[in-house]
Amino acid sequence: MSNLRGRDIISALQFEREDVERLIDAAESLRKEIEEKGILDYARNKILATVFLEPSTRTRLSFQFAMVKLGGQVIDFGLAEAASIAKGESFEDSMRMVDGYDPDIIVLRQKVPGNAAKAAEICKAPVINAGDGWNEHPTQALLDVYTIWRELRRIDGIRIGIMGDLKYGRTPSSLSYILSKFKDIKIYYIAPEQLQIRPEVLEKIRGVDYEKVDRPEKVMEELDVLYVTRLQKERFEDPSEYERLKGSYNINRELLVKFKHIPIIMHPLPRVFELSTDVDDLPQAKYFEQAKNGMYIRAALIKEILGV
Amino acid sequence: MSNLRGRDIISALQFEREDVERLIDAAESLRKEIEEKGILDYARNKILATVFLEPSTRTRLSFQFAMVKLGGQVIDFGLAEAASIAKGESFEDSMRMVDGYDPDIIVLRQKVPGNAAKAAEICKAPVINAGDGWNEHPTQALLDVYTIWRELRRIDGIRIGIMGDLKYGRTPSSLSYILSKFKDIKIYYIAPEQLQIRPEVLEKIRGVDYEKVDRPEKVMEELDVLYVTRLQKERFEDPSEYERLKGSYNINRELLVKFKHIPIIMHPLPRVFELSTDVDDLPQAKYFEQAKNGMYIRAALIKEILGV
Amino acid sequence: MSNLRGRDIISALQFEREDVERLIDAAESLRKEIEEKGILDYARNKILATVFLEPSTRTRLSFQFAMVKLGGQVIDFGLAEAASIAKGESFEDSMRMVDGYDPDIIVLRQKVPGNAAKAAEICKAPVINAGDGWNEHPTQALLDVYTIWRELRRIDGIRIGIMGDLKYGRTPSSLSYILSKFKDIKIYYIAPEQLQIRPEVLEKIRGVDYEKVDRPEKVMEELDVLYVTRLQKERFEDPSEYERLKGSYNINRELLVKFKHIPIIMHPLPRVFELSTDVDDLPQAKYFEQAKNGMYIRAALIKEILGV
Repeated sequence: MSNLRGRDIISALQFEREDVERLIDAAESLRKEIEEKGILDYARNKILATVFLEPSTRTRLSFQFAMVKLGGQVIDFGLAEAASIAKGESFEDSMRMVDGYDPDIIVLRQKVPGNAAKAAEICKAPVINAGDGWNEHPTQALLDVYTIWRELRRIDGIRIGIMGDLKYGRTPSSLSYILSKFKDIKIYYIAPEQLQIRPEVLEKIRGVDYEKVDRPEKVMEELDVLYVTRLQKERFEDPSEYERLKGSYNINRELLVKFKHIPIIMHPLPRVFELSTDVDDLPQAKYFEQAKNGMYIRAALIKEILGV
Repeated sequence: MSNLRGRDIISALQFEREDVERLIDAAESLRKEIEEKGILDYARNKILATVFLEPSTRTRLSFQFAMVKLGGQVIDFGLAEAASIAKGESFEDSMRMVDGYDPDIIVLRQKVPGNAAKAAEICKAPVINAGDGWNEHPTQALLDVYTIWRELRRIDGIRIGIMGDLKYGRTPSSLSYILSKFKDIKIYYIAPEQLQIRPEVLEKIRGVDYEKVDRPEKVMEELDVLYVTRLQKERFEDPSEYERLKGSYNINRELLVKFKHIPIIMHPLPRVFELSTDVDDLPQAKYFEQAKNGMYIRAALIKEILGV
Repeated sequence: MSNLRGRDIISALQFEREDVERLIDAAESLRKEIEEKGILDYARNKILATVFLEPSTRTRLSFQFAMVKLGGQVIDFGLAEAASIAKGESFEDSMRMVDGYDPDIIVLRQKVPGNAAKAAEICKAPVINAGDGWNEHPTQALLDVYTIWRELRRIDGIRIGIMGDLKYGRTPSSLSYILSKFKDIKIYYIAPEQLQIRPEVLEKIRGVDYEKVDRPEKVMEELDVLYVTRLQKERFEDPSEYERLKGSYNINRELLVKFKHIPIIMHPLPRVFELSTDVDDLPQAKYFEQAKNGMYIRAALIKEILGV
């Protein structure tokens, strides 16, 4: 793509290298403008509808703050109401209804893989996929590469370890897809065998050099970035297996300071046990910055989709 | 009434023929202005409070979009909080509290018939009844006749079949009331005996020619409009009776295409089984248009109540 | 303090007499401006984030209306989402996230005493404590003294009875603290022994003349103001003790009219049985005014914290 005006954003694979670079530039200049003025004027007279059919604070608030800081209006579908949808109205009818009120953008989070694409077919308004189950979360991938760029001033050539539940996590897939548009990337997929990255993801990132490893210690010294994600108990058939692995998949200060070189530490948040709070004070801990970067890159994306 | 400035809207019986005509005109011109500019300036500096004590997406969002597109502000009471009301504070105290913050309009949905009128007595702000249990839903009636007008360019003389749960549905009552202000209306009430329209409703629409029938096929060829509503399982003392009737009260493509003349198909939505999705592609299917029309006629109503 | 610009508001003890007087003046003039214009321009380009991790309507709506009437934007964390926080993300991480989106003020309600102070340490944005469990609710204290001032045109020298659950109620503590900054105050703490005011509160209001009594009748004639609060069943180890006390701790019309002098009646609301609705028509009933005053004094506080 060379311009995202009026486009749906369903998969991180849609973004070309130049899209990412242009959005990063735009995010950087919006950041300056917002820090100066608080609320800007670009989206005056525009409405963004947030439809979150699953609980979310970070992503929903990030989009809401982004739109409000662009000067636009937000109307929220309401999570409590979402529960009542489950009982009766079909997903298609609900999306048709929201779209009928002519929002300028719809941001959609729901749990069925592929339903963001279905919503995009139904709706006249551009739809941004803010997570469709284990499938994709393309704006998370955007903020991830924006964070890498802010810390390292490059994306080409980075060596990144992506750790945790790679099989059912949408973040590892979308991040892999977006990185595949850059040069000389090396990805280490760090997970126990049963939670390793799905073959279908690997097929879509041909040309990327990757390696599967089972423990972060094995590659720590190689990494520019360690990207930590959650292990989720419900993914394990055998709960004792989960308990056994919890210990190995915990990034803490003691572990990190053993290494001469500590990579940038990222996490999509929220975290549970897999990333200890004693890491927060290390200069390499960038996950709170990362969340904040999300607001700016999403503002850049909204602005471009609106064509304002 | 000749002007609704500052008025409460509790019952569809309040609207005179000229009110409806004036609001339809206003809705048509707001539609053009909104399509052109996105957000207008009429309600700048005005606040609409939405108090929905029962889950609702269509009606609540419709009012919120309407107010935002008029340039106004919306503050929502919050459904989750509504649950806590049930536990302690009286309805009267809650309404007094919201009213004390001086919103310019209060839109109220709750389940006790007559409580919208009670709220209107308590509150200084104009109250719009957005559904009080099985009693009334006057703005639904407005958008219904607006939709009929948009499709047929007249309301006088129409022959309409209203089908489904006519006894406990607030939509059939409010629609009957508003139609009773027009000339030469013929209403077919299509329902099993136990769900037929209440005598008190019929008393209030004297002069309207109506007929009760038990099956839609019997009158289909006579109709300009078929207005479908839900049958609700919980209304039946004997669940097997519900199961038996489900089959007869389903409007689907196969049924409709048997007739030489297919009426305009309307539905207040959400739908469950009573209106099949295979009807959606027929040119007579107008229920998604109908929902969208709601935003414009509500914008017209809000504008007139605000006197802006 | 002589100016609250950029300050956290955690305890009513922070307010000096001149702060209260200045905020009351500001509330009075904002009241006039808002009554005239509806929505003002002071907070244009500012964002207030409401983070209510416990259900609240009065306080949350009061802050939202205050901010909207100042011309600012509100973004709400969402109560439904709060539930999901309990399951995973730490309070600290959640506050860091919200703060990362750079709101201009964060209003926080949650149930752990002391966590408002913790949030203030974490966040760059000024934090307003809107209730931290049984500990404090400083803006409630502000609106309480504002109400006293509006009714009596003075705060110095008033004699007030504070009645109900003084041990676990945050309102009685915060009100005591703010009154302690004025002269010649007399407080009667009216409660059964097991719900009497905590010694730590009394330590912080040295210089204030107070008396503990067990029944309102004993001091009614002495009072300028009777401030009623709820008795909460769950505070009693023995439920039969609660049932026994309910009768004695009910303020109703019959009780009040026995006295030659009826004090101003206040209540933070919501009320349950402890304050009968038959009191509402007495000219001394000021609790609905009190709630409304909250919007204006909070607008004054927000305006001063924003420095606009």
